[in-house]
Parts: sequence; structure tokens; C-alpha cells
Amino acid sequence: MASAAATSSTATMFGTAAAASDGCSRRVFVTTTVQVRASRSSPAFLRTSRAIKTYSSCSNSSVVNEPRVGFCFLEFYCNCIKTRLTALVTEVSAKVIDGKATAKEIREEIAAEISKMKESSGVVPGLAVILVGERKDSATYVRNKKKACESVGIKSYEVHLAEDCSEQEILQHISAFNDDPAVNGILVQLPLPSNMNEQNILNAVCIEKDVDGFSPLNIGRLAMRDREPLFVPCTPKGCIELLHRYGVPIKGKRAVVIGRSNIVGMPAALLLQREDATVTVVHSRTKNPEAITREADIVITAVGQPNMVRGSWIKPGAVVIDVGINPFEDTSCSRGYRLVGDVCYEEASKIASAITPVPGGVGPMTIAMLLSNTLSATKRAYNLE
Amino acid sequence: MASAAATSSTATMFGTAAAASDGCSRRVFVTTTVQVRASRSSPAFLRTSRAIKTYSSCSNSSVVNEPRVGFCFLEFYCNCIKTRLTALVTEVSAKVIDGKATAKEIREEIAAEISKMKESSGVVPGLAVILVGERKDSATYVRNKKKACESVGIKSYEVHLAEDCSEQEILQHISAFNDDPAVNGILVQLPLPSNMNEQNILNAVCIEKDVDGFSPLNIGRLAMRDREPLFVPCTPKGCIELLHRYGVPIKGKRAVVIGRSNIVGMPAALLLQREDATVTVVHSRTKNPEAITREADIVITAVGQPNMVRGSWIKPGAVVIDVGINPFEDTSCSRGYRLVGDVCYEEASKIASAITPVPGGVGPMTIAMLLSNTLSATKRAYNLE
Repeated sequence: MASAAATSSTATMFGTAAAASDGCSRRVFVTTTVQVRASRSSPAFLRTSRAIKTYSSCSNSSVVNEPRVGFCFLEFYCNCIKTRLTALVTEVSAKVIDGKATAKEIREEIAAEISKMKESSGVVPGLAVILVGERKDSATYVRNKKKACESVGIKSYEVHLAEDCSEQEILQHISAFNDDPAVNGILVQLPLPSNMNEQNILNAVCIEKDVDGFSPLNIGRLAMRDREPLFVPCTPKGCIELLHRYGVPIKGKRAVVIGRSNIVGMPAALLLQREDATVTVVHSRTKNPEAITREADIVITAVGQPNMVRGSWIKPGAVVIDVGINPFEDTSCSRGYRLVGDVCYEEASKIASAITPVPGGVGPMTIAMLLSNTLSATKRAYNLE
Repeated sequence: MASAAATSSTATMFGTAAAASDGCSRRVFVTTTVQVRASRSSPAFLRTSRAIKTYSSCSNSSVVNEPRVGFCFLEFYCNCIKTRLTALVTEVSAKVIDGKATAKEIREEIAAEISKMKESSGVVPGLAVILVGERKDSATYVRNKKKACESVGIKSYEVHLAEDCSEQEILQHISAFNDDPAVNGILVQLPLPSNMNEQNILNAVCIEKDVDGFSPLNIGRLAMRDREPLFVPCTPKGCIELLHRYGVPIKGKRAVVIGRSNIVGMPAALLLQREDATVTVVHSRTKNPEAITREADIVITAVGQPNMVRGSWIKPGAVVIDVGINPFEDTSCSRGYRLVGDVCYEEASKIASAITPVPGGVGPMTIAMLLSNTLSATKRAYNLE
């Protein structure tokens, strides 16, 4: 059935493609040597017709960017044919990478380790969070972190300062937490009020307690081959953890990271490279990000653009980790919007071999990794293990 | 003449390609719509025939790696045609990027600035070098650095310790230089004797005097978007400086860095990304490095493999910066070998638009950038500018 589906779709493909570039596509067809068998009403047929529409639209855009229109069409349709046939011949259907379940699993492992630690050495990890101002979202994050800490046996300390507090006040609290042996990790909830110098404040957190892993020293160690960071930033660490727990091979694979932020994209690229992937970082200045992304076996997106990455960006069988969590207008939802990722899930899940949903993908992993970093900090502080 | 050359070569191309995949190439030809005019004895014709041989050989290898032979041939010859025609239509001939002359120019600029500084504020920059053991090459490098310092008015300080000195001894000298206001830059000549802990020793150099820029804190700042490193490692800084001085646009270009060492490859990739290139790092675990490199507008190689990067790896019109300096057996030379780069210069210079020679390319830039870093360190120390 697979091959039948493939061939029926192939035939359709050329029918449709011919409209745009008859000479090219017809001739290309000769070289594919597949037979038409399945009916035009098969699901594969219909799916492929949709796919062709996407390709037709993106073919136009590549023509605009490319002076040698002849070659462009030629190369473009070759890619389409290869991509779609690979997809259909192998009948890819994406496995859902369940971040919620994986995070739960990790939190249980951490809880078990902490209770053992408490029994054997009486040590209880502590995480301090500094919240400034009245942002609702920040307050929610902090509340969730507190809950998560309690659920695994990490003692949480919280300081809530007014929007109009002074930088000095914040620095004093950080310095107190730096000196407090009961506190193993310190977290300053971002964003801070716009009038404050975020860098100065973050730099005040001592490296041994910087469980967010955002300090330049940590990032430098992450980038260097013979160094080890004290902490890996939580969200990219969560992405790689998902790949590991789902048995996705990284070594020698092509990886594309879309977005180059200090907190996700850049460290995610460094982590993938540490595991011997061949990494390309795609960003706002990248020309033809679609073609580059289509070369990747592993795609990590962190751009904050709802549904930016379409199905046509994904190489058949690729693994997609979607870090984006974007509100997307949806009047059918009570609150008038729903959360979607940077990747168009409906399209990509038909082409990828595995993909994270939004919500329920990378999101829950971030807090789990924060707990994991706090546990490591504690072990390091007490020379446990 | 250019188009004639192109078309004659195109015709030849299809003659040759047809042997391997007649259906594909003939049809592809229809889409190119070029006319055959020039004579079969034209240089372009002969050059292209050679090119086709290279492509034929690499096509076999890609067939081995690729299960879908039909698509592979199809895609492969499309690439060949596009690549070669682009090359011939634009009649690329590589400009030599003269690192020796550029480095001389930079040293003169530095000398002028230092003499002004001396006049206006009486400040003279100082660079301290610590050499351990009797390695001839290290001794030569140190001697050259000393000469270069003198030539621009930087006072150089040198400590030469015996192979069997203690780490403690080295650390004492570093600490003395850290405290000496006349010393603005400190350099520990690598490699150190194998029994020593290189990291401990390098970490002892205070960040304000780490003119090599190898400290993790510096690298972290280099990797982060809103941070500025105190120093950029000299060799990658030299590569980017060559691109700037030769007016090579970086923003939005595809760049491939071959090699991911802490001292060249990794920081070079970070620098290119800071300038908005779309960067891919190719390394020993990368599959099909040739195809990936062929996508790059800018190629920086730092692998230490003589002539590893062949002409077929280079996209026509690409700019090639070759950091490799490798001894290559040559009985015609008095010393029995000559120095060659990681790139096969003879082949690449026929396809690239600009390329650095070896020697005389990046090599001389490294010391020039060391002088530049020492000057910046001095300005920073005295709040000059």
C-alpha cells in the first residue's frame, strides 16, 4: 500500500507541477521510474495534492530570490520530488515527544535522589527566587517553580520586591543568598523592571549558585571542548534531554537551531555540537531558512513566531523540538487565544518522525531541569557523589 | 566571451554526464536554454572537462551513500550544472588575500597609534611572554613576537623557564606580571610540558591581560549577543580582519568553518555569527563535509590536514580563508618539505573568488592581532580613547 500511495501521489505531483514548469517536471518524472497504481481518492493522493500547493507557493518565492530561474525551477522540483517521495515511500508519521510525561519522570527521579540524600547526609537542597514587581506571568512562573521545588523536596526561599525597589536592594538579597549555605541555587525572575541593569544583577549571583547557567563563564565553558560548564541553561538542557530519553541519535547528524538567543538558541547549538552534531544556526538574517532547515535531521526552534516553520521546512523523518510558546488568536477558546509553537504542528507532524507538542513539550522540561541543576549544585557544594 | 565559454562547456558537460545518466542530463539541458558557440579548444572547455571528471568521481561516492540512486543522480547533476555554469558565466578567478601585506599595514597603524599615545600620555604598552622548555618552534614564535613588539613600540618582557620547572614557579611569574602595571598583556607560550596543568596555568592570567582571549569568560562573552569580549583570540580575529579589509560582505552569507578547536574554529564561528552570517561548523564527525562546504559563501578552514579541502568542495565565487599551515613532503625543497594549507590552493584558486595563500595568508595576521590586543589592553588599563 505504501508504494501504491507513493506512486499515485507521484503521478499527481507531476500533473500539478507541470502547470508551473512542464518541461522540467515531465522530464524529471522519467528518471523516477515509479508506476501509477493507487486510486486518486487515496489519502496519500489528497495529502500530496495539498503538499504540492505549498511547494508551488514556495517555488515562486525562490524564483524571486534566484537569478537563474531555469536552474532554480529544476533544482526546486528535484527537491520536491525527493522530499515528497521519501516521505510517502517511508510513510512517516510523527511520534509525539511527550515533555509533560518525561518531566514528571525526571521530577520523580530527582525526588527519590533528594530523599536518599536527606537520609544519608541530612542535606536538603535549597533554591532562592527573587521576584521584582507585579507582572502576573512572572508571579505565575515563580509560584510554579515553588510548587515544583516542594514536590521534589527542595526547600524554596522567596523574596518579593516592589517594582520601585532599588538595584542596591536586589544586590543585597543576592549577596545574602550567595553567603547562605542553605541556598544552593539562586534565580532572579526575568524580566526585571526596564530601568534596572539586568547584567549587573545577574552577574552578582555567584557562579556556584547560578542554576540558570546564564553567566558568560558558564557559556564559555559550554562552548569550549575541554571544559565543563557548572550548569547548562534549563530550556536547551531540556531539549537535549528529550532527544536522549527518546533515543534520538545526535552524533554525526545535521542539526538546525532556529533562533540564536542567549537563553535558548545559542546554548542549544553549543550543546548539539558538544554531542558531535553538525550544527547550523538559522536566524533573522538568514537567507532561505526553509531550504537550510530542510537539510536537518534535528530541528530546534526558539523564535517566538507562531507557526513560522511549515511542513515544507521539515526533512521527512526529521525530529522537531519546538521551544516556542506563542498565543494564537482562537475565538473558539474561552480566553480568545490558544498556545501554539514556532512550528506548524499539523503540517510538520505529517513529515517529521518525532515532534514535541505545544503546550506539553519543552515547557514542562524547563522547570524539571531547574530542579536538576539545583540538585547538582547541592551535590557539588557538599561533595556528594 | 564569458557566455560563449559557458555554453561550450555546458555542451561538453552534457556529453560527459550523459554517459552516467543520459535521461536526466539531456532533459536538464532543455531547461538551461543556452547556445553552443565557443570552440572545443577554449580554456573554459578544457577546464570544464577536468571539472566533469572530478564531479563524476564524487558522484559515485554519493551514490554509495544514497539509497535512492535515481534521485541522487538527478539532484547531483543538477548541482553540477548549476555550480559549473555559475562558475563559468561569472568567469571566477580568485583574488589572492595577502595576509603578509595586510599584517604589515596593521602593524604600521598600531605603531603610529602607539607613538601618538607615548607622546600624549607617556604610556608605553608592555607584553610579557612566558616560555617553558626548549621546543625550537616555540622559541621561534616567541622570538618573532618579541621582534614584532619592538617594531611597533611595545615593550616586551620575557621569562624563559626550564622544562623541569614547577607549575608553582610559572604561577609566581604570572602573578608578578598580573600585578605589574607596565605589563598590559601576558602570553604563556603553548604547548606547555605535558606533565603540567595547562588550564590552571592559563586561568592564572588575569582577564584584563589575557591578550590571547582564550579564557572561558572571554569566550562566553564572544558567544553572547549583548556582551562584548575583552579580547578576541588572535587567529580568528585575523581571519575576520582579512574579510573586512578585503571588503567581503559577511551579513546574511552562508559560512562554513571546518574545525572546532577552542583557539580557531569555535571562536571563528562565533565571530562570523556575531556579524550575522549563517554559520555551519564542519568537524571530524560531519557526514559529507564536501557537500556542506560547497554551500558556503565564506569558508574558514582550521584542521591541520594538508590539502584536505579540494576544488570540488568550494562553491564558485566563495571566499576561502585557510588557517592551516602543514608541512608537506617536497624533495625539491632544500629542507625536504614545504608548507601547505588545509585547502588545495591550486584547485580552489580556480573556483573561489578570493583565497588566502599558505604561507603569507592568515599566519602573519595572528601576530598583528596580538599586537592589536595588547594595544587595546593598554588603552583599557589607562582609560585612553
